[in-house]
Amino acid sequence: MSILVVGSVALDTIKTPYSRCEDVLGGSATFFSFSARFFSQVNLVAVVGNDFPTKYLKLFREKGINLTGLEVADGETFRWEGEYDWDFNSAKTIATHLNVFSDFDPKMPAEYKHSKYVFLANIDPEIQERVLRQVICPKLVACDTMNHWIESKKKQLTRFLKKVDILFLNDAEARQLSEENNLLKAAKAIFRFGPKRIIIKKGEHGALLFSKNSIFCVPAFLLEEVYDPTGAGDTFAGGVIGYLASNRNLNDDSLRRAIVYGNIMATFAVEDFGPWRLVSLTKPEIEKRLRVFKRLTYF
Amino acid sequence: MSILVVGSVALDTIKTPYSRCEDVLGGSATFFSFSARFFSQVNLVAVVGNDFPTKYLKLFREKGINLTGLEVADGETFRWEGEYDWDFNSAKTIATHLNVFSDFDPKMPAEYKHSKYVFLANIDPEIQERVLRQVICPKLVACDTMNHWIESKKKQLTRFLKKVDILFLNDAEARQLSEENNLLKAAKAIFRFGPKRIIIKKGEHGALLFSKNSIFCVPAFLLEEVYDPTGAGDTFAGGVIGYLASNRNLNDDSLRRAIVYGNIMATFAVEDFGPWRLVSLTKPEIEKRLRVFKRLTYF
Repeated sequence: MSILVVGSVALDTIKTPYSRCEDVLGGSATFFSFSARFFSQVNLVAVVGNDFPTKYLKLFREKGINLTGLEVADGETFRWEGEYDWDFNSAKTIATHLNVFSDFDPKMPAEYKHSKYVFLANIDPEIQERVLRQVICPKLVACDTMNHWIESKKKQLTRFLKKVDILFLNDAEARQLSEENNLLKAAKAIFRFGPKRIIIKKGEHGALLFSKNSIFCVPAFLLEEVYDPTGAGDTFAGGVIGYLASNRNLNDDSLRRAIVYGNIMATFAVEDFGPWRLVSLTKPEIEKRLRVFKRLTYF
Repeated sequence: MSILVVGSVALDTIKTPYSRCEDVLGGSATFFSFSARFFSQVNLVAVVGNDFPTKYLKLFREKGINLTGLEVADGETFRWEGEYDWDFNSAKTIATHLNVFSDFDPKMPAEYKHSKYVFLANIDPEIQERVLRQVICPKLVACDTMNHWIESKKKQLTRFLKKVDILFLNDAEARQLSEENNLLKAAKAIFRFGPKRIIIKKGEHGALLFSKNSIFCVPAFLLEEVYDPTGAGDTFAGGVIGYLASNRNLNDDSLRRAIVYGNIMATFAVEDFGPWRLVSLTKPEIEKRLRVFKRLTYF
């Protein structure tokens, strides 16, 4: 089944201890799409400026990502500049230029309105809600958020969470949103805002899936080299929602496998700058890494 | 098969955000013994002062722990005072009084010399080596260490590691010993010192087992309340070595199950001050938590 993703398409400048890359293809919707497309048809809604390189548009199309909903606006593309230290656990933002993204008012092409799986990447919760209103009878609504919206629009965010089936957030955001330090307590508190399931991303320490009556805990894959963690969280979400849309089943077993696929996809994302590893990636490589991951975790 | 453990028996003063407890039973050999005794006979070697409460000696004996090797020396028992913040991830040491432990020269009772499973808790690597020389043909030698010995006695420590089958250490210590930030690279570097297997403890993020040709990664059990993490690492080691000694098998599958048992045992240790939860614990409770853990991690 096809997936609708609404988020950012950006040009990132990234500095790591290894090197510095300018205007690399980035943005939440980009990483999500390049990951989810291995499992399902992806319909993208985003905005770029008229400086956005044609080669990147071509790349999306080559990978089968539907760009009918990609608006090309007058002005410059959203740019983010960040830096990672050796521990790669958190990015230090050097500069954010929203540019055309600051007036982002997602327009939904008619052909997208019947999308059954919806992922609302980390954008203003009021926009997330506005987008969702345009989708007719979705089967699954997932969203991401971040500290900025928890701080500035908590009311709007928690109102929106009533309509959400799966909330993705990282451990720091879960603590901030719930005002609880312990992640089990944090999940319980967040459930009161309404989401049916909560996925807490713990970076190099794996992820947690909370359902009302069960918890799934998955460790991260161990990697010898991390080149660029930008987009790992959205790549993870792309694997999760991609798998669920292809599997068409939302039971606990299916969700667990989806998390494992998300985990695997994220390990590829960090192996190169921007989404380049996801671009060169093949389905057999994903299945091979899944087998390695199973060996890593069985007992 | 019986296990020989050499380490500290101490009286701890612990402050957490919940409360403060003085002269609680503590020490590496204590936590190890109270955990391992669920699986195998434990022979303890340690030293206490003549101020050590008789009720604690009685407790060890009640739990079937062999105290033939516990020396009662003139002077005061080793005392440690520490404080935990809300995150419970690392203790802030307020005071350490080695007392009788400063001259600890372990004497091995004749009946211990044929112990097949040996755990040398976190003590001076020269003492670890001296103890090991007194054991006749052990089947498995495991040890723990800490930043203090890595800093002050790295040469002696790495020389001793050639005789070690399983090295336990936490992630920070692994990085320090190997001078590598990435844990995969750290394990590879530590293997060059000689241990056959390395277990890296990651606290609330689980543990990693490195063998020459395989890796096992286990997430931690999620707990809603942590009261006192003191001794969690030694309790973990007690579960691992205890299971191995009862199972008498050192293949990869057995080691993986041992790590899972260690993990489970550690979750009990942190549920109360000192070793009190391990004192009240029953075998059915351990097996029940194992079943919960399996549900938490299967996919």
